Amino acid sequence: MSVLALLQESLGTLVDTDEASLEDARADRSGHAAAGRPLAVVHAERVEDVQQTMRIATATRTPVVVRGAGTGLAGAANAGAGEIVLSLRRMTAISEIRPDDLLAVVEPGILNADLNAELATHGLWWAPDPASRDISTVGGNIATGAGGLLCAKYGVVRDAVLGVDLVLADGRLLHLGHRSVKGVTGLDLTALVVGSEGTLGVVVAATLKLRRLVPGETCTVTATFPGVRSAAAASAAVTAAGVQPAIMELMDAASLAAVHALLALPVPSAGTAQLTIQTDGPAAAEEADTIAAILRAHDGDTVVSHDRVEGERLLAIRRSMHAAMASLGTTLIEDVSVPRSAMPAMFDEIARIEREYGITIPTVAHAGDGNLHPNFIFDGPETPPHVWAAADDLFRAAIRLGGTLTGEHGIGVLKRRWLADELGDDQWQLQRQIAAVFDPLGILNPGKVFSLDA
Amino acid sequence: MSVLALLQESLGTLVDTDEASLEDARADRSGHAAAGRPLAVVHAERVEDVQQTMRIATATRTPVVVRGAGTGLAGAANAGAGEIVLSLRRMTAISEIRPDDLLAVVEPGILNADLNAELATHGLWWAPDPASRDISTVGGNIATGAGGLLCAKYGVVRDAVLGVDLVLADGRLLHLGHRSVKGVTGLDLTALVVGSEGTLGVVVAATLKLRRLVPGETCTVTATFPGVRSAAAASAAVTAAGVQPAIMELMDAASLAAVHALLALPVPSAGTAQLTIQTDGPAAAEEADTIAAILRAHDGDTVVSHDRVEGERLLAIRRSMHAAMASLGTTLIEDVSVPRSAMPAMFDEIARIEREYGITIPTVAHAGDGNLHPNFIFDGPETPPHVWAAADDLFRAAIRLGGTLTGEHGIGVLKRRWLADELGDDQWQLQRQIAAVFDPLGILNPGKVFSLDA
Ligand SMILES: Cc1cc2nc3c(=O)[nH]c(=O)nc-3n(C[C@H](O)[C@H](O)[C@H](O)COP(=O)(O)OP(=O)(O)OC[C@H]3O[C@@H](n4cnc5c(N)ncnc54)[C@H](O)[C@@H]3O)c2cc1C
Ligand SMILES: Cc1cc2nc3c(=O)[nH]c(=O)nc-3n(C[C@H](O)[C@H](O)[C@H](O)COP(=O)(O)OP(=O)(O)OC[C@H]3O[C@@H](n4cnc5c(N)ncnc54)[C@H](O)[C@@H]3O)c2cc1C
Repeated sequence: MSVLALLQESLGTLVDTDEASLEDARADRSGHAAAGRPLAVVHAERVEDVQQTMRIATATRTPVVVRGAGTGLAGAANAGAGEIVLSLRRMTAISEIRPDDLLAVVEPGILNADLNAELATHGLWWAPDPASRDISTVGGNIATGAGGLLCAKYGVVRDAVLGVDLVLADGRLLHLGHRSVKGVTGLDLTALVVGSEGTLGVVVAATLKLRRLVPGETCTVTATFPGVRSAAAASAAVTAAGVQPAIMELMDAASLAAVHALLALPVPSAGTAQLTIQTDGPAAAEEADTIAAILRAHDGDTVVSHDRVEGERLLAIRRSMHAAMASLGTTLIEDVSVPRSAMPAMFDEIARIEREYGITIPTVAHAGDGNLHPNFIFDGPETPPHVWAAADDLFRAAIRLGGTLTGEHGIGVLKRRWLADELGDDQWQLQRQIAAVFDPLGILNPGKVFSLDA
Repeated sequence: MSVLALLQESLGTLVDTDEASLEDARADRSGHAAAGRPLAVVHAERVEDVQQTMRIATATRTPVVVRGAGTGLAGAANAGAGEIVLSLRRMTAISEIRPDDLLAVVEPGILNADLNAELATHGLWWAPDPASRDISTVGGNIATGAGGLLCAKYGVVRDAVLGVDLVLADGRLLHLGHRSVKGVTGLDLTALVVGSEGTLGVVVAATLKLRRLVPGETCTVTATFPGVRSAAAASAAVTAAGVQPAIMELMDAASLAAVHALLALPVPSAGTAQLTIQTDGPAAAEEADTIAAILRAHDGDTVVSHDRVEGERLLAIRRSMHAAMASLGTTLIEDVSVPRSAMPAMFDEIARIEREYGITIPTVAHAGDGNLHPNFIFDGPETPPHVWAAADDLFRAAIRLGGTLTGEHGIGVLKRRWLADELGDDQWQLQRQIAAVFDPLGILNPGKVFSLDA
């Protein structure tokens, strides 16, 4: 019997072979698509469906691409010819919310924003807040180790997961981690699954570490600077001064101009870069004032707002970055991360690369944690060679500065050829061998992350 | 050539075969000692010494026990016949302190307290604060995934390590993690090394995530309760109310009585249990008042102090627990951890076990994170069978309540026979296979954590 027939026999109508569904599964939001079309999309509704799919995949040695909402930016959920797409999007139940223990147990397919809307009714939240929180799943957030705007103060996904249930390539179900906040029993496999991009197993449930909603007001400080370097230096000074903003976002001149154009706001004067900073909690107002003083000392043209709605309006400028870039052409969004003090130097490197390759690289940054998103814009679906050459230069600069290829988006297919440069060959081999312990036949997301071909 | 001769040939005077040193390396602070005496203690002074030792160990297939200060409570650093002890205690350099990036790079042998004394001069600290901070090493803290009094608010070791340099069993050196606060490049091997108890490799350097010293006053709230169950319920109520104490320690009646006896304080009335809570930061005083109100509502006889010195005096009672137990006999310190709301139920289980086995189990708890330390006291060096039976009952109760065998001390030799009960056989096998990827010959701490024999 064919793989498809086996799937249909045991999973019936959960097996979707609509042309549109198959086409859809070829690409995530990176703009990059797999070659060919997958065999089928399995819409799992229960853990047993996931196990059954994996058993068939193992028996027939068929590759499986696990998929949440497909909002990834590294091509990690892209499925091509001969592959089964295993979608978790229908598994959206919240099994448990425990305000006393500050934990929730959820299925992986729930959207981050839907979960947080429900948690808010209990006075709680799950802190990871990727800009894609309205459209990405909790399982996808875990599998990519997502970050977000608030993570310098409130942590990333790896800080907010107590345990996961994982279905292995052969269909066995493991319970990793615990419900207690502490626990050092054996190796921390929960942490290993965070950020593993569908290569170790399928996350079918997660025990999440929650926070209480932060009481008090939210203050917003915006400041414009004559250039990106002074904006970066000012943000580094904020960090060095020991104030902890909830959000600290930086936009360079090209980004700010593009968003202003998109939103039909006044054209900023040439070279103007912007910082948007929010403080929250009991000391929000005081911290906002301290921050404003630092920004002014760094020649920032600075405004403080105590109004939550106005704050959201100001942040909306930053949140429109993705749309502004898309309006300019095809975008390759990069994601390097460096120690915070190296941010100005990283911006110097970007300026150098712009000059050397004769391109503009609009860049925004989660400045509170040194994570930059340089955007390469081009025409047509394929990333041109000179853009890859410039990106290569960018990655090497980040690594030289003590940073990393990817702060939050992952390796997927788009960055696999640089992985060994960062890890070193020995560590790269070791990581591959560890993945093989989970998935000895290599059927989970083959060609992603650890693939040898570029 | 013999292993010892090979070591001496290439490491000279770093190889120590003094009887006292060998005898010393047989035991940690668990009271348990390995059978026989190790071959030698190598006092590594540089990364190269560690690599050289591991190369000889690999070539000769000789087991190696990595050792920090030997303060562990699970027997994980105990070395016996035929084993090489690799001590990191001489590698104490602080290579770098970066206040702007909130990071430090250190060698593994530095004592936690020595590091923090140095960091304090920069207005910084490394948050993990095991009660053994004056006598345990940073490398040991990392290898055990140590917790401490402050960890409910400020996190445990796994939250405070950005990267480690790891020497593998065959002597190769890997650089894991990054200096940037964010990074999702491949699998998170840094997190895997945290808590790995010397089974994956030798930590020869660590990049630590620091915090700024917390400004403002520290307030201390103490309350006594007619019984441990009401004290546990009161502490759970504090957590459930959403206040976040820096420290919240619980002592049951037997513990309190023993410490009062040791310190020659007045005898507490029968059954009296105690909570000692500290708040810090800008809202310390306000939080202390909120907490005091909750404790009083739970019938706690409550006192608030705003004096730091008085606070230290009050906490000293809790800190004298280890000495008080030691004065009563040989102690097996257990370390179960449960979801915070299950703490009262866990104390019920302990009371049941005390009744069923006819023993007293003095228990203290890091109540803010549901981590309990029940103490079994007996005469002579060997843990008697009925104590192991009672401990077995205790572990199973913790797991039933959604908790874990060990919140912070680890598995070592003392808990290895329960590891598979908590992990399940499939996960246990998988963890063993992962360890084998790092150490294919099984020479790193063999018989610890994953051993099959009880
Ligand atoms: C406008 C926009 C803004 C964004 N902003 C951010 C941001 O601020 N921070 C950030 O980190 N990312 C951001 N992203 C990227 C993306 O949203 C995140 O990576 C997100 O976590 C992906 O979730 P998803 O459900 O869409 O996963 P998918 O894209 O479907 O999958 C991503 C990876 O996870 C794996 N996976 C998914 N579900 C599971 C599962 N249940 N078990 C095992 N593996 C699984 C897939 O195999 C794949 O490797 C943004 C994307 C867009 C389009
Ligand atoms: C009085 C007292 C109070 C304590 N309080 C606490 C507490 O509050 N919280 C807590 O978590 N623990 C506590 N402990 C236990 C102990 O102090 C910790 O486990 C500590 O982290 C061990 O550090 P060490 O340097 O003594 O390591 P060791 O005991 O020497 O080693 C412990 C384990 O780590 C491994 N190891 C050590 N160094 C390295 C390295 N560089 N590379 C790889 N592996 C290594 C060893 O092989 C062994 O498996 C306490 C102990 C005592 C005696």
